Amino acid sequence: MDTSKGLLAALFLQGLEHRRNLSYFADLSSTKVPNVITPTTPPAERPEESESLDVWGFRDTRFDFSESGHVIIRGSRYELSGKELPRFLPWVREVLECDVSPRNVNSPAYPTSIPEPFLKPDFLEALQKFFRPNQIDTNGEIRLRHGHGHTQEEMYAIKYTRLGRIPDLVVYPEAEAQVTALVETAKRHNAALIPYGGGTNVTDALRCDGREQRTIVSIDMRKMNRILWVDRKNMMASIEAGAVGRHIMAELKTHGVTMGHEPDSVEFSTLGGWIATNASGMKKNRYGNIEDLVLDVSVVTAAGKLERTGASPRESVGLDLRRLMFGSEGTLGIITSAVVKIFPLPEVQEYGSVLFPTFEHGFQFMYDLSRESTPPASVRLVDNLQFQFGLALKPKSSGGLADLKSKIEKFFVTKIKGFDPYKMVACTLVFEGTRGEVARQQHELYEIAARHGGMKAGAENGRRGYQLTYSIAYIRDFLMSYYIIAESFETSVSWTNALQLCDVVKHRLVEEYAKRGLPGKPFVTARVTQIYRTGVCIYFYFGFYYKGIANPQEVYLELENIARDEILKAGGSLSHHHGVGKLRRAFLPQIMSQTAIQWKRDLKKTLDPTNLFGAGNQGLDGS
Amino acid sequence: MDTSKGLLAALFLQGLEHRRNLSYFADLSSTKVPNVITPTTPPAERPEESESLDVWGFRDTRFDFSESGHVIIRGSRYELSGKELPRFLPWVREVLECDVSPRNVNSPAYPTSIPEPFLKPDFLEALQKFFRPNQIDTNGEIRLRHGHGHTQEEMYAIKYTRLGRIPDLVVYPEAEAQVTALVETAKRHNAALIPYGGGTNVTDALRCDGREQRTIVSIDMRKMNRILWVDRKNMMASIEAGAVGRHIMAELKTHGVTMGHEPDSVEFSTLGGWIATNASGMKKNRYGNIEDLVLDVSVVTAAGKLERTGASPRESVGLDLRRLMFGSEGTLGIITSAVVKIFPLPEVQEYGSVLFPTFEHGFQFMYDLSRESTPPASVRLVDNLQFQFGLALKPKSSGGLADLKSKIEKFFVTKIKGFDPYKMVACTLVFEGTRGEVARQQHELYEIAARHGGMKAGAENGRRGYQLTYSIAYIRDFLMSYYIIAESFETSVSWTNALQLCDVVKHRLVEEYAKRGLPGKPFVTARVTQIYRTGVCIYFYFGFYYKGIANPQEVYLELENIARDEILKAGGSLSHHHGVGKLRRAFLPQIMSQTAIQWKRDLKKTLDPTNLFGAGNQGLDGS
Repeated sequence: MDTSKGLLAALFLQGLEHRRNLSYFADLSSTKVPNVITPTTPPAERPEESESLDVWGFRDTRFDFSESGHVIIRGSRYELSGKELPRFLPWVREVLECDVSPRNVNSPAYPTSIPEPFLKPDFLEALQKFFRPNQIDTNGEIRLRHGHGHTQEEMYAIKYTRLGRIPDLVVYPEAEAQVTALVETAKRHNAALIPYGGGTNVTDALRCDGREQRTIVSIDMRKMNRILWVDRKNMMASIEAGAVGRHIMAELKTHGVTMGHEPDSVEFSTLGGWIATNASGMKKNRYGNIEDLVLDVSVVTAAGKLERTGASPRESVGLDLRRLMFGSEGTLGIITSAVVKIFPLPEVQEYGSVLFPTFEHGFQFMYDLSRESTPPASVRLVDNLQFQFGLALKPKSSGGLADLKSKIEKFFVTKIKGFDPYKMVACTLVFEGTRGEVARQQHELYEIAARHGGMKAGAENGRRGYQLTYSIAYIRDFLMSYYIIAESFETSVSWTNALQLCDVVKHRLVEEYAKRGLPGKPFVTARVTQIYRTGVCIYFYFGFYYKGIANPQEVYLELENIARDEILKAGGSLSHHHGVGKLRRAFLPQIMSQTAIQWKRDLKKTLDPTNLFGAGNQGLDGS
Repeated sequence: MDTSKGLLAALFLQGLEHRRNLSYFADLSSTKVPNVITPTTPPAERPEESESLDVWGFRDTRFDFSESGHVIIRGSRYELSGKELPRFLPWVREVLECDVSPRNVNSPAYPTSIPEPFLKPDFLEALQKFFRPNQIDTNGEIRLRHGHGHTQEEMYAIKYTRLGRIPDLVVYPEAEAQVTALVETAKRHNAALIPYGGGTNVTDALRCDGREQRTIVSIDMRKMNRILWVDRKNMMASIEAGAVGRHIMAELKTHGVTMGHEPDSVEFSTLGGWIATNASGMKKNRYGNIEDLVLDVSVVTAAGKLERTGASPRESVGLDLRRLMFGSEGTLGIITSAVVKIFPLPEVQEYGSVLFPTFEHGFQFMYDLSRESTPPASVRLVDNLQFQFGLALKPKSSGGLADLKSKIEKFFVTKIKGFDPYKMVACTLVFEGTRGEVARQQHELYEIAARHGGMKAGAENGRRGYQLTYSIAYIRDFLMSYYIIAESFETSVSWTNALQLCDVVKHRLVEEYAKRGLPGKPFVTARVTQIYRTGVCIYFYFGFYYKGIANPQEVYLELENIARDEILKAGGSLSHHHGVGKLRRAFLPQIMSQTAIQWKRDLKKTLDPTNLFGAGNQGLDGS
C-alpha cells in the first residue's frame, strides 16, 4: 500500500505539474478565468504604422541604394533594415544579364493620374446623415490607393501609365449599423460598393471597371477592427472583418491565444479579405486554412443581413450559404464579422533548415514527410535560384568570426558534402507545439531528411528565411524603379505532377522570353510553399529587365498567362490561394463546366440583382 | 571514420527498416506501384446482402424473442447474433415501468398502403429508350421503400398507419450518361426527381409531398457504385456517388487504403448521401468529416453538369459551388461522383474503455483530452442509463470463468473503487495510427483519464461498445412491435453549454411526459459522441411505452420538438450531422436570419427553377 500511495502521490504531483504548465486552460467549472473576454477597443491608428500609398508596406521602410551603391533597406522595422546587402545588386545583374544600377533609374511619376470623383451631392448628403466627416474621404491619392491591389500591372500603372477608373469616394464604417445604412443608401442612389481590407490582393480584385457609370464607393473596413469577444473555454473568438492581421495577432496574444492564420500579407490584410479570397496561411499545417478556421460569418447583403444565432463546432443545417462567402471576392456582400477558432500560443516555437543536393531530393523528402510524419507548422522548399536569392540578400557580414564561420560553412557544404552550389536547395521549417510534439516532429523530420541527402543547416538559417518573407515584399516596387518588373504566381498540384509542372513552366517562360528577343535573361524560380497529403502549392517568382520594352506590364501579363496555360495543362489549379479576381477570370471556362460558370452568374444575379457589390470579380459583374 | 561509417550504416539500415514498414508508399519515381489503379467493377448484388424492406438492415438479421422468452438477434452476421440477451427485457421493463413482453405484441400490418403509381405511358416509353427493363421498377413495396428513410414516424406509418404519397417509379441508373438522359427526360415530361442512396436518413428527407401532382421518380443510385480510380501516390480516389459504405471500405482495403469515413449507417449509406447530408463519421478525429474528405464533386443539375477538370489538394477559384452540395439533401441536383481523400490503413487499431464515477467526470476528462492531447480516432462517453443499456445487452455468459470474471470486475468497480452503479459511466475508445502514435495517444489519454477518476476497463469493453452500434440499429424496429417507440436526435454545442443542455433536455422530456399522463416512464439518455476543440456532439436516445396512446408517433414528434426547442435555447445547433430534411425545417427561422432563409429559396429557384429535384427538403420546394 505504501508504494501505491507513493505512486499515487507522485502521479498526483505530476498531474499538478502538468496542469500548471497548461495555465491557459481552466476547469470548465472554474470561475477564476472568465468564460468570455470582451477586449477593449484597440488604440487608434498610430503615425508609425502609416502605410505607403505608392508602394507596398509601411512608410518607414523602403529598399534603396546606399551611399556606397549597395542595396539597403531604409528604416529600422525589420531585421534586415539598415544593413547593406552588398551581394544583391551584382547577383541581380548576373542573373538577369542586365545593367541594373543606381544610375539606371526609371523615375516613377506617381501618381500618374487621378480622375475627378463622380459624386452627386444628394448621395453625399445622405451618407453624411450617418457617417462623421472623418469617415468620408474624396482625397485623390486615397481614392487611387483604394482602386488597386498589388499586381505588377497596377503598380506599374500608378507610376508610369494610368490606372483608369478609381473609386469616387472612400468611406470608413465603424459599426455594422453603418454598413447596413450604407447599403440601403447605395441602393437608393444606385451606387456601386466595393469592400476594401488591406488592399493587398494580387488579382486586380479592386480594379474598377472603366465602363462603370455609377458612383463607386470603396468601403474601407479597417475601422471595424474590434475583437468582439474571446472565449478561451470554447476556443473561439468573434472578430470584426476589418481587423488587420498584425493587430489580431497582437491582441489575441495578450490573451494567450492565436488564430494561427499568417499569410505573407498578415501585416496588412484583414479577416474579411481572408474570407473573401479563401486565403491560406503559412502555418496551415498546424492550424488549417481559412475555411478550417472560420466557424461563422456575418454579412450585410443586398437583401439584408446574413447571420446565424450562434456559432457551432460543426453542424449539418442544409445549404450553408456562409460557405459562399469563401472566395466571393467582394461580389456578394460586405462581410462584417466572423467567429473563428483560436488556439493556445504554442509552448515552443523553433526554426530549422535543411540543405538538399537538388530540388528533386528536397521534393522527395517533402513527399515522404507528408506520409510518414506530422509535418511541422511550416515547411518550404526553395529551388536553387531562390536559394541563391536568399544568399544574395545576406547583409555585409560584421567581419571577423562571423565571416570565418560563413566561409567554413560554405566550404563544408560544397567541398566536404559535395553539394553543387548551382543545384543545392534549402528547406526552411517552423515547428510549433508542445515541447514533446516539437521534439518528435524534429526527430522524425531530420531522419527523413537525412534519408534524402539532407544536411541540417540550423535554426538561424530557417529563421532568416521566414523573416525575409516580410521584407522581400518591398523589393518588387524598388526594382520596378530600376527597370525590373517582377511578380509571383502560384498553383496547387498533385505530387506526381508537381516536378514536371515546375519544369515546363520554367522552360516555357525562358523559351518565350528568348523568342521575343527580350533583354538579358528572365528570373524564374519556384518553391514548394505548402504540402498536403494530396499535393503541394508551388509558388513562382518571375521577373525581367524591361528597359527598352514599350509596355513591359503587358508583356509580363502575356507571359504569365502563357505560364498559367502550362500550369493548367500540367494538371495544376488556377490558384492555391491568391484567387481569381479579374486577373484570371478568362481561365474559368478552362477549369469548370459551362453549367458551373452559369450557376455562378445566376447565383450572383439572384443574390445581388442590381450588382450593388460591383467589384466585378470572377466575371460576376451582373451580366 | 569507422564509428561514423558504422553509424551511417546503422542509420541506413534503420531507414530501410522504416521504409519496409511503409510498404504502401513507393517512391514517387518508382514504377513498381502503378500511379493510379482502376479497380474492376464490383460484383453484382449478392443474395446474402439483401436488405429488409420493412425494417432496418440486412434481411438475415432481426431482433426476436427466443423460445425461453429472452431477447435474441436472429442470424449470424454480427458478434451478438444468435446469443440470448437475458437481461434486456427485464431492464426495459424496469426502466420504462411497463409491461413489455413477448405476449404483448402490436402486430405490424406492413405494408399498410401502397398507392397505385401515377405514370404516363409516354414518360415510361421515353425512359425505356435508355434504361434496360431491370433498371425500372414499379413494384409497390420497392416504391414504398424508396419513399421513406428511418424516422420513427415513417417506420410507424408503413406498419400501422399510412405513409401517404410515395414515388411512382424507381430507376437504377448505371452511368452518368443515363442520369443526364433521365434529367432531360424528366424535364420534358415534367416529372420530379428524388435521389436515393441507402435510404437511411432520419429527417424525412425522402418523404414525398402529398400535394405533388407530377410523377415522382426515385433515382436509386446504387448501381453507380464503382470506384473509378485509386491514386495511392497522391492519396485520392474517385468514387461514384451510389457506392455504399461497406463496399467502399472493402474495396479500398484491398488496395491498402481507407476513406476513413464510418458513420453508424456505413453498412448502407452512400457517398452521395454523405455529401448531401453533410455527414460525420465515427473516426472524424483522425480523418475529418465529409467536408474535409471530399476534394471534388460532380453533379448533374437542371442546367447541365457541374464539374471540374480535376481535383486539387486545395484551391482558391472564387465562388465554390461544389460546396453548395454539402447539405443540399437532394434539392439541387444528382451527385454522380466525388473525388475523395484516402489514407493508408492504420498500422495499428486498438480499442479501449474507461469507466468514470459520473458523467461530469467523464465530460471534464474529454475537455482536457481535447486540449492536452491528440484525441484517438474515436472517443465516446455514454451516460449512466446508456451504460446500463450496454450492460443489459450483454449475452448470457458462458458460465464458469467468464461469469466469475464478470462478478469480480463488478465487485471491484463498485465496492473497491467506490463507483456508484447508478452514476458511473463508460467512455469507449478507438485508437488508430502508427504504433508510436497509438502508444502516445494511449499514454496521454489514460493519464488524463486517471486525473478525473477514470479507471481503465480494457479493450474488450471498448470493442464491444462499438460493435454494439451496428446491431443496436435493429432494435428500434423490434421494440416498435412491442409497444415501444424510440428515436435518436443530436446536436452540437460548446463545451460550456453542453452539460446544462443535457440536463435541461432530459428534465424537460421527463416533465412533459409526466404532464401528459403517458404510460410508465420515458427512456432519455445522452452521450457525447464527438469532440472538437470548440465543443461536442451530444446524441440523445428517447423512447417510451406507447400502448394505449392513440397516435404515439405524433406524441413522439411533439416531444422531440419540445426537446429541440430546449436544445436551441441552451445554445445547441439544429443538428450536428443528421441534417434538416423536412423534420426540422420549421426550426430554420430560429437559427438563421430571414435574409439567409430567403437566400436559400432564391438560390434554389435560380439553380432549379422548376423544382425538378423535388425532394422539398429544408423548405426548398420551389415556392
